[in-house]
Amino acid sequence: MKGDKMAKVILCNDWGHEQVDSIYYNGNFRTLDKSVPEAQAIAVKNGIIFKIGSNKDILNLANTHTAVIDLNNGYALPGFSDSHFHLVHYANTKRKVELSGARSLADIIDLCIKGLHKRQQENGWLLGCGWNQDYWHDAIFPSKGDLDKVSTEIPIAITRTCYHVTVVNSKALEILGLDKNIPILTNGIVCVDENGEANGILLESAQNIVSKYLGIPGLDKIKDMILDACMDVAAAGITSIHTDDFEAFSENTSDLIIQAYQELAREGKLPIRIYQQCMFKKPEYLKEFLMKGYKTGNEYGFYKIGPLKLLNDGSLGARTAFLSRPYRDAPNQRGVCLYSQDDLMQMIQIGHNGGMQIAIHCIGDAAIKMAIGCFEAVMIAHPRIDARHGIVHCQITDMSIIEKVKALNLLVYAQPIFMRYDREIILSRVGADLAATSYNWRAYTCRNVHLSGGSDCPVEKFDIMPNIYCAVTGKNPENNQDMAWHPENCLTLDEAVCAFTIEGAYASFQENERGTVSIGKYADIVVLNKDIYKVNEDQIKDIKVKMTIVNGSVKYRN
Amino acid sequence: MKGDKMAKVILCNDWGHEQVDSIYYNGNFRTLDKSVPEAQAIAVKNGIIFKIGSNKDILNLANTHTAVIDLNNGYALPGFSDSHFHLVHYANTKRKVELSGARSLADIIDLCIKGLHKRQQENGWLLGCGWNQDYWHDAIFPSKGDLDKVSTEIPIAITRTCYHVTVVNSKALEILGLDKNIPILTNGIVCVDENGEANGILLESAQNIVSKYLGIPGLDKIKDMILDACMDVAAAGITSIHTDDFEAFSENTSDLIIQAYQELAREGKLPIRIYQQCMFKKPEYLKEFLMKGYKTGNEYGFYKIGPLKLLNDGSLGARTAFLSRPYRDAPNQRGVCLYSQDDLMQMIQIGHNGGMQIAIHCIGDAAIKMAIGCFEAVMIAHPRIDARHGIVHCQITDMSIIEKVKALNLLVYAQPIFMRYDREIILSRVGADLAATSYNWRAYTCRNVHLSGGSDCPVEKFDIMPNIYCAVTGKNPENNQDMAWHPENCLTLDEAVCAFTIEGAYASFQENERGTVSIGKYADIVVLNKDIYKVNEDQIKDIKVKMTIVNGSVKYRN
Repeated sequence: MKGDKMAKVILCNDWGHEQVDSIYYNGNFRTLDKSVPEAQAIAVKNGIIFKIGSNKDILNLANTHTAVIDLNNGYALPGFSDSHFHLVHYANTKRKVELSGARSLADIIDLCIKGLHKRQQENGWLLGCGWNQDYWHDAIFPSKGDLDKVSTEIPIAITRTCYHVTVVNSKALEILGLDKNIPILTNGIVCVDENGEANGILLESAQNIVSKYLGIPGLDKIKDMILDACMDVAAAGITSIHTDDFEAFSENTSDLIIQAYQELAREGKLPIRIYQQCMFKKPEYLKEFLMKGYKTGNEYGFYKIGPLKLLNDGSLGARTAFLSRPYRDAPNQRGVCLYSQDDLMQMIQIGHNGGMQIAIHCIGDAAIKMAIGCFEAVMIAHPRIDARHGIVHCQITDMSIIEKVKALNLLVYAQPIFMRYDREIILSRVGADLAATSYNWRAYTCRNVHLSGGSDCPVEKFDIMPNIYCAVTGKNPENNQDMAWHPENCLTLDEAVCAFTIEGAYASFQENERGTVSIGKYADIVVLNKDIYKVNEDQIKDIKVKMTIVNGSVKYRN
Repeated sequence: MKGDKMAKVILCNDWGHEQVDSIYYNGNFRTLDKSVPEAQAIAVKNGIIFKIGSNKDILNLANTHTAVIDLNNGYALPGFSDSHFHLVHYANTKRKVELSGARSLADIIDLCIKGLHKRQQENGWLLGCGWNQDYWHDAIFPSKGDLDKVSTEIPIAITRTCYHVTVVNSKALEILGLDKNIPILTNGIVCVDENGEANGILLESAQNIVSKYLGIPGLDKIKDMILDACMDVAAAGITSIHTDDFEAFSENTSDLIIQAYQELAREGKLPIRIYQQCMFKKPEYLKEFLMKGYKTGNEYGFYKIGPLKLLNDGSLGARTAFLSRPYRDAPNQRGVCLYSQDDLMQMIQIGHNGGMQIAIHCIGDAAIKMAIGCFEAVMIAHPRIDARHGIVHCQITDMSIIEKVKALNLLVYAQPIFMRYDREIILSRVGADLAATSYNWRAYTCRNVHLSGGSDCPVEKFDIMPNIYCAVTGKNPENNQDMAWHPENCLTLDEAVCAFTIEGAYASFQENERGTVSIGKYADIVVLNKDIYKVNEDQIKDIKVKMTIVNGSVKYRN
């Protein structure tokens, strides 16, 4: 009846042409969005994808105000996500001698001497990081005597790749007063030799003696460190990280770290999205944090408060992972458990009831079982909608753990790249039976457990491709050799890509904002030089990042 | 090292036993949650599911404070969701003579006379609803003369099932002053006979003359009406509805309706969850609503503000659906379009920029194209994260519409039960070519478009099983006869069940809160007497609801 006045009805492209901010075209997009799995181009406004389609469809929207960027037939995926990172620790390592390449004690000494020659010092100390004794023949920790060969005048402290062990030289022991007094610590050990003297090996919280002495950088320095580190991360195609930083310097610098990130976010300087894993060791620090009004989900632009992060045990390499039975290669040890079950329960209760998502570092099976028990209890006592609690690492597992993780709907934060080293030690540490059901990532994905991928950088390098390669092939990316691990634990390629994209988004409650290339999501994109779905699987690790786009802007271009 | 103090590490059920509110056991749960697809029992606390498992696992949690409810081997699904409902209109119909069974004009007259005898009057009027002339032989609207056979003393008004046509008798015309003056309306028509006198037929907004005269019930009365209607809905296994009520009495009673729901929610009386579809016809009403601070997502317990609902055309039955070409059976008509494209664009812009999700009633293909054009324009001009705009009904479609709905990531709110009647008229209304690509629900699901299911109650009855039956079989639930519709448009059973559960939750941004039986979601459950996945498909429509559970409490039991 009134149809007449509607003569002009159109499938309309007629409004808003002048509004388009940017167009990325000539791409081979794998969107990971089932509704539009492949595309050539996207159009972006205000950081948000509003159209996906063919070059023709999208270029048709361009005008003189539009940035039109040619992807040169690059292969575009949703920007990568790393779900367990230590960004400030990584920034710290950039001030230190890099020791991850050392394959002997002699290498350590050599690299440190080279560092000295390059005057690579921080407050008068020579600092190193990344060593791993399991890569060299006799596989024993360095001690003060080894580092004294580098210098007896300059204090030296070198930290193991796992961050659970630091070794210092005699000069450092003297400066720290450990040559005279051996303190008894709650969660750490100053190791001694047969004479009762400090041998230079500092375990777990004993490492804080060094970091406390060295002091904490100021706010501006931390901001610079964060930005510098973020640029490295963006260059790896990573557009979002979950990062655990509060203990990067010594105990609880949460206020300073939060302030640094908040200021960078407010100033629009953060190139990637940050989801803060909030590590607190003591209930009073956590309570204070909650009293200030922080909780999971608080958002400050690119910076978002993430889960309470709890550290429940150590590392497998340092034999501080907490096992349900003695280490096969150290029959007097079961590892370190950093909480009693009651104390862990208390932390979880405070966090859970205070509105925090919770992610617990557990490597050993006993640590995992303890955390699962607490999660089950708190979820019975105070069920919460969609809490998304989870286990970080979740390495040494039996089938009962896997089934329980599924039954409790917990998240798993996996680091497939860890196998590169861990497969060297797992059999000797825990034995073949327990090893067979450990690092069992596929057991989670095939049960529809949400499994996200990460590097735990700086424990491992944060390049995504070697990590996906490990997850998918079970081979060592350094030499393409089969790691002789259980092939049934390998992820499918789709699962691995999802673990480093949409599952990272899910673990931060952002699956509707990012993690796929979709209309109405942020334009966070990585462009690769090869099609990960088509190359021979041995080539996956060598795929390079050509461009990183965050919120519609190019943050890295190679 | 400190492992000794951790001798007792358990997969723990030891805390919180006393905390369990209720257990539902002896069920055959189909959870729709891939991680735990089937189960026997669930445990609930504070309305939330915290454990799913076998009878043994779950009953083990019971104690003297736990309500332990035997489901008697009933078949449990996530509680049903109806994504397009008019709850207050339905409540209104309960005060009226039900005419949907009429199969002739004589039936109408007969049922009205019976209503008179039962003194079924409201403010001295006899009101009726639900008639549909297409069910009787000559398929013409009743007029005043027909209703005068019921009474010339008592005013009568009977509304068509589609709510786009009301017919009144001479007494009513007299009381309303329409016997003397025929007003010219913007969006409606007071129809006249060859003498220029009102014939009793009132189209679209002309119906408001009746409702305005009858006036609006008070707050307490509306609350009672809502509660009474909700109990009926809960008895159908429906635990959540999207409902469009603001125009249930006359133009814009939004304040009154919102107040009624808010009070019921605050008083804890709502038995089901309400997602308010907020219909506004004029920009000033919408602006006023936004100025008061309302927007999509505002939550008041069981009551949540949903999308801006816009009405863009009429109904196919009344030939008011807006088509791109003339009606085949009325070559002078293309239907009614309630907005110009500019006016519709204005409403959408205000809503979109004000933070509203938007759902637009469009039945005809021209109405749909107009809405799609506006959506595309507004999403280009002001892209928003995860807006979830959509088309309600989305009935008469060509393939370009379907592809565009997919490309713009719009939601579809479908009413499969509409086919029961519409397949009688579709060919004569629009012709075979357009009919072949209309009501094409599978075209959306197979493209991963989010499609949710509803009844548009009181346009159709809200029982879910006949609706699923129509969606899946393409048969008429009244007689099991094949509707001779396009079988390729039928949903799979899984898709249909999802349309009435998780997709309803998705369309209200609640997919992480409800829509599957999952840990950490609300315990909203329907228990059926048969397994929908195992019965012969002809039996689906006859499956009965045995129990409805909302937020962990039994709201209905048969």
